[in-house]
Amino acid sequence: MQDSLPNTRDAYVHFLTLQTRWMDNDLYGHVNNVNYYSYFDTVINQYLIEIGGLDIHQGAIVGIAAETHCRFRRSFAFPESIDAGLRVGHLGNSSVRYEVGLFKAGDPQAAAHGYFVHVFTERGVQKPVPIPAPLRAALERLRVAPREFSTPAT
Amino acid sequence: MQDSLPNTRDAYVHFLTLQTRWMDNDLYGHVNNVNYYSYFDTVINQYLIEIGGLDIHQGAIVGIAAETHCRFRRSFAFPESIDAGLRVGHLGNSSVRYEVGLFKAGDPQAAAHGYFVHVFTERGVQKPVPIPAPLRAALERLRVAPREFSTPAT
Amino acid sequence: MQDSLPNTRDAYVHFLTLQTRWMDNDLYGHVNNVNYYSYFDTVINQYLIEIGGLDIHQGAIVGIAAETHCRFRRSFAFPESIDAGLRVGHLGNSSVRYEVGLFKAGDPQAAAHGYFVHVFTERGVQKPVPIPAPLRAALERLRVAPREFSTPAT
Amino acid sequence: MQDSLPNTRDAYVHFLTLQTRWMDNDLYGHVNNVNYYSYFDTVINQYLIEIGGLDIHQGAIVGIAAETHCRFRRSFAFPESIDAGLRVGHLGNSSVRYEVGLFKAGDPQAAAHGYFVHVFTERGVQKPVPIPAPLRAALERLRVAPREFSTPAT
Repeated sequence: MQDSLPNTRDAYVHFLTLQTRWMDNDLYGHVNNVNYYSYFDTVINQYLIEIGGLDIHQGAIVGIAAETHCRFRRSFAFPESIDAGLRVGHLGNSSVRYEVGLFKAGDPQAAAHGYFVHVFTERGVQKPVPIPAPLRAALERLRVAPREFSTPAT
Repeated sequence: MQDSLPNTRDAYVHFLTLQTRWMDNDLYGHVNNVNYYSYFDTVINQYLIEIGGLDIHQGAIVGIAAETHCRFRRSFAFPESIDAGLRVGHLGNSSVRYEVGLFKAGDPQAAAHGYFVHVFTERGVQKPVPIPAPLRAALERLRVAPREFSTPAT
Repeated sequence: MQDSLPNTRDAYVHFLTLQTRWMDNDLYGHVNNVNYYSYFDTVINQYLIEIGGLDIHQGAIVGIAAETHCRFRRSFAFPESIDAGLRVGHLGNSSVRYEVGLFKAGDPQAAAHGYFVHVFTERGVQKPVPIPAPLRAALERLRVAPREFSTPAT
Repeated sequence: MQDSLPNTRDAYVHFLTLQTRWMDNDLYGHVNNVNYYSYFDTVINQYLIEIGGLDIHQGAIVGIAAETHCRFRRSFAFPESIDAGLRVGHLGNSSVRYEVGLFKAGDPQAAAHGYFVHVFTERGVQKPVPIPAPLRAALERLRVAPREFSTPAT
């Protein structure tokens, strides 16, 4: 299933460059797998805030992680920087499935790619709410045409 | 697919209790999704080292993350502690698929569960190698009977 | 100055045991220096919440870090656990200077020790406020007699 | 003492811009104090590797943290980026004391500043060794004239 995820740079819509940190490297000399998800988290929330207008401090809604996945193909190592590419694979009423690719500078092939499902809820309440129109419009701009090999509903 | 992952405490074989840390909490007051993978990483490597005899500093082989996945059901919040449960879902020639469940103290239902695929390679070389016998024996002890609903090969 | 910090286990009042995590280790095979401060943060906030009654989610006051320091003497390495010892070196009207020692299991000598200054402010406002009586009483219980070699005012 | 640390942008020699990450923010909505030290770590090691030629994977020497300190003046919050400024305050035979300032984009005043002492040792051995000439030359380029208010020897 996950093999149907996009793994080339041109499949992504929004990009953010991230500087790796010394402590991202683990004992084996490469960026630890856990940190990849912090890159996912960062490009997603940066887009929600700067483009989608999400107010993470006082806004009425918050995005809760429901499911995440990553496939690791090639390793990163400090001090290299990472280009995180973002697109939306599925946009539901109250949830969104982002797809993220992580790229070495100048490399068209993703070193890692995965997905991240957000469910939007009222702040402080676990009940899903419809995604507000301005945020939905921003997410629509990351949406891509249905792919030939479908992914499971989320 | 992921719904077939085990989500009760009795489905796991090995456990490690982890103290959450202040900075595990994110802006929304709960443990950030990224940290769940550090709990996965920790219970897996603690088992490999303490039970499997893996020498992470000088040993001939290392475990490289190939794919990870997590489904989040209920949130954790600092300062609570977490019981990480571990089992092996698939044991190949050079790879292993661990399944991990994260539990609140006293709760039989997993707050989160997922999987983690390690490929063992020679240190410093990206080529897979067969899992050595002593480590394989330790992993066998975490293996569980095939489940009714199969998961995809990894 | 920092040499006057206590470095034996019996100089600390409150303890919390922390499980190291795989990713705490850095490239050189030992716990990265940055993580020591997350151990400081954790033992301090665990005490504030569980003993001091601080409500980190809704309470009227929050503790803001003003200054931190650590001296590293011996290294830790995953998967060992760490005993974090806490005491209060100075208790002001709106600020507190904690002193923290980090110990290997069974070792009376600190592997690392340092201090952490919190200034309490109204939530959302940067203005210092007096430490409320119940929290102050909890902090008093961590206070130790003045030491012979004084530390600078904070 | 720490007040004599430089806190303006023009006092630093080398800079690296760091993208904050979503999980850098803690419950209180600002970058957690612990992460500041990962910024210190990152600008220092990036300089050692890219300018000083330190081979962190195979080189004969490694830098071990002996002491670190930070004073927090203003907070950062995701998704802003941070300019980390680096200089050398003291260069000994086998140790170096870096001074680091962290700046908001366009702000000449440091939001935080501190120091970090590295002792260089043989890889795998805790014994200090003299800093090799090429690395020393790179560190000399970060050195600044003695300041009027001296800092303690480290």
